[in-house]
Amino acid sequence: MSTTPSRRQRLHRIIFETDTPAGRRFDQVLLLVILLSLLVTIVDSIASVHRDYATHLAWVEWGFTAVFAVEYALRLYCSPRPLKYAFSFYGLVDLLAIIPGILAIYYSDAQYLLIVRIIRMLRIFRVLKLAPYLRQAHYLVEALRGSKQKIIVFLVSVSTLVTVFGTLMYVIEGPEHGFTSIPKGIYWAIVTLTTVGFGDIVPKTPVGQMLSSLVMITGYSIIAVPTGIFTAELANAMRGEQLRHDCPVCAKNLHEHGAAFCSRCGHALFPKRDEQA
Amino acid sequence: MSTTPSRRQRLHRIIFETDTPAGRRFDQVLLLVILLSLLVTIVDSIASVHRDYATHLAWVEWGFTAVFAVEYALRLYCSPRPLKYAFSFYGLVDLLAIIPGILAIYYSDAQYLLIVRIIRMLRIFRVLKLAPYLRQAHYLVEALRGSKQKIIVFLVSVSTLVTVFGTLMYVIEGPEHGFTSIPKGIYWAIVTLTTVGFGDIVPKTPVGQMLSSLVMITGYSIIAVPTGIFTAELANAMRGEQLRHDCPVCAKNLHEHGAAFCSRCGHALFPKRDEQA
Amino acid sequence: MSTTPSRRQRLHRIIFETDTPAGRRFDQVLLLVILLSLLVTIVDSIASVHRDYATHLAWVEWGFTAVFAVEYALRLYCSPRPLKYAFSFYGLVDLLAIIPGILAIYYSDAQYLLIVRIIRMLRIFRVLKLAPYLRQAHYLVEALRGSKQKIIVFLVSVSTLVTVFGTLMYVIEGPEHGFTSIPKGIYWAIVTLTTVGFGDIVPKTPVGQMLSSLVMITGYSIIAVPTGIFTAELANAMRGEQLRHDCPVCAKNLHEHGAAFCSRCGHALFPKRDEQA
Amino acid sequence: MSTTPSRRQRLHRIIFETDTPAGRRFDQVLLLVILLSLLVTIVDSIASVHRDYATHLAWVEWGFTAVFAVEYALRLYCSPRPLKYAFSFYGLVDLLAIIPGILAIYYSDAQYLLIVRIIRMLRIFRVLKLAPYLRQAHYLVEALRGSKQKIIVFLVSVSTLVTVFGTLMYVIEGPEHGFTSIPKGIYWAIVTLTTVGFGDIVPKTPVGQMLSSLVMITGYSIIAVPTGIFTAELANAMRGEQLRHDCPVCAKNLHEHGAAFCSRCGHALFPKRDEQA
Repeated sequence: MSTTPSRRQRLHRIIFETDTPAGRRFDQVLLLVILLSLLVTIVDSIASVHRDYATHLAWVEWGFTAVFAVEYALRLYCSPRPLKYAFSFYGLVDLLAIIPGILAIYYSDAQYLLIVRIIRMLRIFRVLKLAPYLRQAHYLVEALRGSKQKIIVFLVSVSTLVTVFGTLMYVIEGPEHGFTSIPKGIYWAIVTLTTVGFGDIVPKTPVGQMLSSLVMITGYSIIAVPTGIFTAELANAMRGEQLRHDCPVCAKNLHEHGAAFCSRCGHALFPKRDEQA
Repeated sequence: MSTTPSRRQRLHRIIFETDTPAGRRFDQVLLLVILLSLLVTIVDSIASVHRDYATHLAWVEWGFTAVFAVEYALRLYCSPRPLKYAFSFYGLVDLLAIIPGILAIYYSDAQYLLIVRIIRMLRIFRVLKLAPYLRQAHYLVEALRGSKQKIIVFLVSVSTLVTVFGTLMYVIEGPEHGFTSIPKGIYWAIVTLTTVGFGDIVPKTPVGQMLSSLVMITGYSIIAVPTGIFTAELANAMRGEQLRHDCPVCAKNLHEHGAAFCSRCGHALFPKRDEQA
Repeated sequence: MSTTPSRRQRLHRIIFETDTPAGRRFDQVLLLVILLSLLVTIVDSIASVHRDYATHLAWVEWGFTAVFAVEYALRLYCSPRPLKYAFSFYGLVDLLAIIPGILAIYYSDAQYLLIVRIIRMLRIFRVLKLAPYLRQAHYLVEALRGSKQKIIVFLVSVSTLVTVFGTLMYVIEGPEHGFTSIPKGIYWAIVTLTTVGFGDIVPKTPVGQMLSSLVMITGYSIIAVPTGIFTAELANAMRGEQLRHDCPVCAKNLHEHGAAFCSRCGHALFPKRDEQA
Repeated sequence: MSTTPSRRQRLHRIIFETDTPAGRRFDQVLLLVILLSLLVTIVDSIASVHRDYATHLAWVEWGFTAVFAVEYALRLYCSPRPLKYAFSFYGLVDLLAIIPGILAIYYSDAQYLLIVRIIRMLRIFRVLKLAPYLRQAHYLVEALRGSKQKIIVFLVSVSTLVTVFGTLMYVIEGPEHGFTSIPKGIYWAIVTLTTVGFGDIVPKTPVGQMLSSLVMITGYSIIAVPTGIFTAELANAMRGEQLRHDCPVCAKNLHEHGAAFCSRCGHALFPKRDEQA
């Protein structure tokens, strides 16, 4: 088991794992390259930059594609089961990182390639596993999972509200004030309920303005609901590595992580023979 | 009591109850039909769609009306007390789901029928009883009920603020800057206090802008109030606040959350060996 | 002490107190009249209504002034110390409720009288003492008082942020993009930081838009701060009638309202002779 | 050690410390002067004020510069190690407070001096040390430090969301609807996600409006996340989480908040009579 690792195994450690200095450095460099390639894509979309530096940026983009292609080849080479890797989520994302650069040879100005180039960003998550932030993210995800059902109830209620209000506004204000259809009314209701308030469509009639006031105050009040749900769940998740077990005497059901006795009544949480029988 | 149920009783179980597979399936199909009929209503309101597909959609709408009419007849037939059903809340909603389709024969373009057609959405709630989400909704409703009085106090305060600010702005800015009446001023104050900020009416004078800043900072600060109320109540509802346990000595039956001793007589609430025997 | 009360004393009970049915009814009628007078003021500000019904509304307004004048006279008459009442807060508010009606005879269209007429709204609070809502309002006020210092720290920080961002935007965007002075920049920063976003002044330069993004994300993040402060304090206030007293043995410092013994260690909170000596 | 302090030492106490009445008064006067100089800078930026009072304000500004110069000289004089002070953070800020007044002699209308003059505001923090508010600020800072990692996770997620949504909108809406580049799209996504909603760029196509609705509801929902994080941490910071007390038997020294018995060995943490003797 402790034989000298082959070159492929050593490469695997550097590329796929993060517990060696070399592996961490590899991930840091990769993170930098991904962010840079992203930046180039974003900057390239500015008309004046594109006009002046299109060819330079195309070369840079080519460089990134080459780097990613080499990385993809290496990952395939050193992976113990290359096919499994190739069809895994990250394997596909890695492949997608190369494709736009290659397609760009044939379709020079295909705007939809942009989306694919932006998908590269997903690769950041592979690299972020180095962070001590993951434990914190874990709390957040835990709290979100715990509040899933409550949030679905909330979203269904919001959808209902938004459909009702949107339809009412369509009937009240009508097409002459910008509410040209029910979907438009629903869009307006979402803009208003979430307190975004673009102002591209606004109520003009007194009745419409009264109804809007109702929508706004509703939105302002129920902004509390997801916050309340989430806060309560997060507090749970943070106390969270608590032991869930009913005390056989006092029925206290949450205990300290390593508790052997109930901190309220002092009885053994897991009594030995006596009560087991 | 366990005689073979008649056909009417079996129908009643399928249509009104949800604890059999057939009943659940019936509700799922109904939910789908309701959502589809809603979608058709919404899509039909788009001018370009209505122009091209008006007759097709009218036929589809006729189909839905037929389905709902059959369902209504079945409910009347298998209900043990049809009249009580017919005048119950859901009975009326079920009736309202049929009316617009029938009225549409005589009044071909009556826009107000839309509202009635939207009322069909209320029927979704009848179907949603299948969800395990209701226990979660229970927490939310509990928390809302607990915070009712505090929220009324809050809404009264907000109404007062909004009236005062709206009037002040009407006096300061005047009709030439869009504040044409006090109700308009109040509408503006609501738009601003709830941080929606459409931008259809904005202060132009320096004094008006200073007052607006005050309104915004107030709104931004008191956004905390309903959230705080709700969060505190939800946290209460989620853990069962107080410990219900009779003190073995003085019989006090409500104690602090983590109490080990009775706070009135000082005796252990869960004595160790002595009283177990 | 239990002699028959004089007419003045009986009137005093009805007008100033709320613990008799007559007193409660008096307050309810008064509340209605105040709200109606407010409604008339608001409706009167709509140009089209004012044009058509100005004289009618003036008569109605006269009626309200008469009612309030009679009420003021009665309060003065039945108050045991009329002067003290006249110069109390509510005495002055009651007087202000009459003045605009009288002044309106001489200055027919004085808009600033509006403000005085709106001040009548303050009288609602006198009447609201009937509500069981006051205990709830008490919690809110308690929580606000508890969080006062933290909120001042927060407001000072926000003012600093807003001044800095406003000045920066004034320098970056300049008068040609609507940022004509530092106060205007500060106004914009408040509009943005509070997530109101009117859109009357918006950044046009790339640097300005980057800075705005920073302002918005800051505002979006620190929206948490007053909420967090308030929620934590409200939870305190609601547990809140708790007994603050250090247990002489275990130093637990918050106990149930009527606690005689510590619920954690079971020791007397206020031991008799032994430890007093 | 308790010899009569020299004049320099006495000055040092007044200028640098706040525990004497004279020191406090000095700080209060300084705070007033700083705020006034700030006010003058802000007011001077208003075009109409600048036109009419430019020379008056220049004189006032000169006065402030003189006051700050004297103060700087005094601080240098009475500081035990003048060089260390001069290169400390506050030493540099104090120097920056004088420079703009002196430079203004040569460059009469240099707008960038504004920034330097605004930096004076930083000096406010030096004075604020008198406040009893610092203990409260301590809680806030504590809560912020505790939630640092979670907030970084949150900001990274928000940045990712905003980049993805911004790019999608750029592709969907295109330059003809105001989305002229990806950075512009990202700017729009930030404006929308934070619920600011200026309305300077708005989606026009149906697909764009559907995507915006998604962005808004996301923003509205995740507004909960920083609030939840912060509230949970603040609640932690405000009550001292765990009970510090040595168990008399097993010496475990950290226990659950309301623990009466040790959760490791089951012995009473605060035994009654037996061990008191």
